[in-house]
Amino acid sequence: MSLLIIGSVAFDAIETPFGKTDKIIGGAATYISMVSSYHTNNINLVAVVGEDFPEEHINLLQKMGVDTEGLQIKEGEKSFFWSGRYHNDMNSRDTLVTELNVLENFDPVIPSSYQDCKYLMLGNLSPQVQHTVIDRLENRPKLVAMDTMNFWMDIALPELTETLKKIDVLIINDEEARQLSGEYSLVKASRKIMEMGPSYLVIKKGEHGALLFHENNIFSAPALPLEEVFDPTGAGDSFAGGFISYLAKTDDISFENMKRAVIYGSAMASFCVEKFGTERLIGLTNKEIENRVQAFISLSSVDISLSI
Amino acid sequence: MSLLIIGSVAFDAIETPFGKTDKIIGGAATYISMVSSYHTNNINLVAVVGEDFPEEHINLLQKMGVDTEGLQIKEGEKSFFWSGRYHNDMNSRDTLVTELNVLENFDPVIPSSYQDCKYLMLGNLSPQVQHTVIDRLENRPKLVAMDTMNFWMDIALPELTETLKKIDVLIINDEEARQLSGEYSLVKASRKIMEMGPSYLVIKKGEHGALLFHENNIFSAPALPLEEVFDPTGAGDSFAGGFISYLAKTDDISFENMKRAVIYGSAMASFCVEKFGTERLIGLTNKEIENRVQAFISLSSVDISLSI
Repeated sequence: MSLLIIGSVAFDAIETPFGKTDKIIGGAATYISMVSSYHTNNINLVAVVGEDFPEEHINLLQKMGVDTEGLQIKEGEKSFFWSGRYHNDMNSRDTLVTELNVLENFDPVIPSSYQDCKYLMLGNLSPQVQHTVIDRLENRPKLVAMDTMNFWMDIALPELTETLKKIDVLIINDEEARQLSGEYSLVKASRKIMEMGPSYLVIKKGEHGALLFHENNIFSAPALPLEEVFDPTGAGDSFAGGFISYLAKTDDISFENMKRAVIYGSAMASFCVEKFGTERLIGLTNKEIENRVQAFISLSSVDISLSI
Repeated sequence: MSLLIIGSVAFDAIETPFGKTDKIIGGAATYISMVSSYHTNNINLVAVVGEDFPEEHINLLQKMGVDTEGLQIKEGEKSFFWSGRYHNDMNSRDTLVTELNVLENFDPVIPSSYQDCKYLMLGNLSPQVQHTVIDRLENRPKLVAMDTMNFWMDIALPELTETLKKIDVLIINDEEARQLSGEYSLVKASRKIMEMGPSYLVIKKGEHGALLFHENNIFSAPALPLEEVFDPTGAGDSFAGGFISYLAKTDDISFENMKRAVIYGSAMASFCVEKFGTERLIGLTNKEIENRVQAFISLSSVDISLSI
């Protein structure tokens, strides 16, 4: 099924205890699109870059099966640039540079060939832009999933609240869920957030896995215990990409299938952190992915006979 | 199979955001024994209290099936007392009072009727005392499990290191595993710790579940997402009690069965935190326990067909 992805396509410069990169390709929509390419060839990208963005990166996305008709290239402008340094624990980071550049006035244009989209993934962007994309689709997609971050809760909560009313699945981390709901208990937080609009909520907990909430159902996915997290950049976006593209591929939005989508998302995120930036997401084989999914399943499988 | 439990039997005074208690019954061996009573009636306790310890508490343990012949009552002395205040997030706490009292010179005496023990649970105590218990058993138990804490790593690391060589299963939390190994990655930490002696390692992660390590195998158990943690005191000891008593009951120390033991431990810990102190651990029914175990299994069960 067709999948529409919106988000940033950008430059990142990353420093971790293992080394540092120059400006490399990054951005939520880049990670989501690349990861999605392993599940579906029907990927439509809406994003914006400056004229400084190398054609080879756009060619790479196209080669991976991403339709870039909706990728605007702004003459005389610069691409979004983020630079950050991770601390030793890899769970926290300092932002060194944020240059919004083309993102400042991003007006998302949906090509007419994208209008039939059944699955929509709103990568992390201003909630107004996310809302605009939903408004500009002639037909509501079968499923709208969205990522956001604490930054938007701080500076654009009213707009975020409006956008949340329009979506089906919200994908955020535990800290963001606590901030958005004002509740420390994630069970209470999930209830409050689902009252704001989304009927499904995924809470990513980094090295502790992820939780999926829907009505009174909860699914807990483990994280793969890793020797080393090399670079966490893009892990959340890779999760979102694995999640939404598995749903688009299987075209089944039951809770049971969403559980599988969470495992696929977790598997793709576990690849992402093994190398810098998007490096590990290029050239994966289906066998590697299935083996990783199998590792996730084995990790938490237990066979207990109960007398009840 | 017979289970020998050693640890503190003590008074606690607890403050949480939900309220505070007077001096109530506490101590690692109290929690471990009470929880174990749901799996086996062959529980032998080695501990020490002062003459201030109420007979009704000892009677309660006996009524739950705990043999207290090894519980020394020291005339003219006072029982161990700990008082703490939990912060709002329930993940951190301040110790307000620690009075070692009878624990200061605890010389564990093993009654001859306890000598046949097959399963030994060394609750958190000084590593010298834990070591003494192993030395005083004529035959090595089939399985020796042990809990410890960062306090002993700070002040008695050489003694702790010696004791670790004598045990099979170490049960500690993630922070302690990192301190003991000097490794942030829990995979690396587990390898280092298993080289110190124990061939099995359980790392408890509180609201994030628990990990079981053995050779190259890893099992990840979820935590039950709770509306509210009322009082975390004793959760780790309840885990240890559920774990060791399930093994003693089934008398099967395969990795597969240890996975089940981790689920039972997690289930018992999840009961513990629902009320103050040991309150929730008294009068549980088998049906409640099995339902809780079922909830844990449902939480992480997912059915994926892979093509590999």
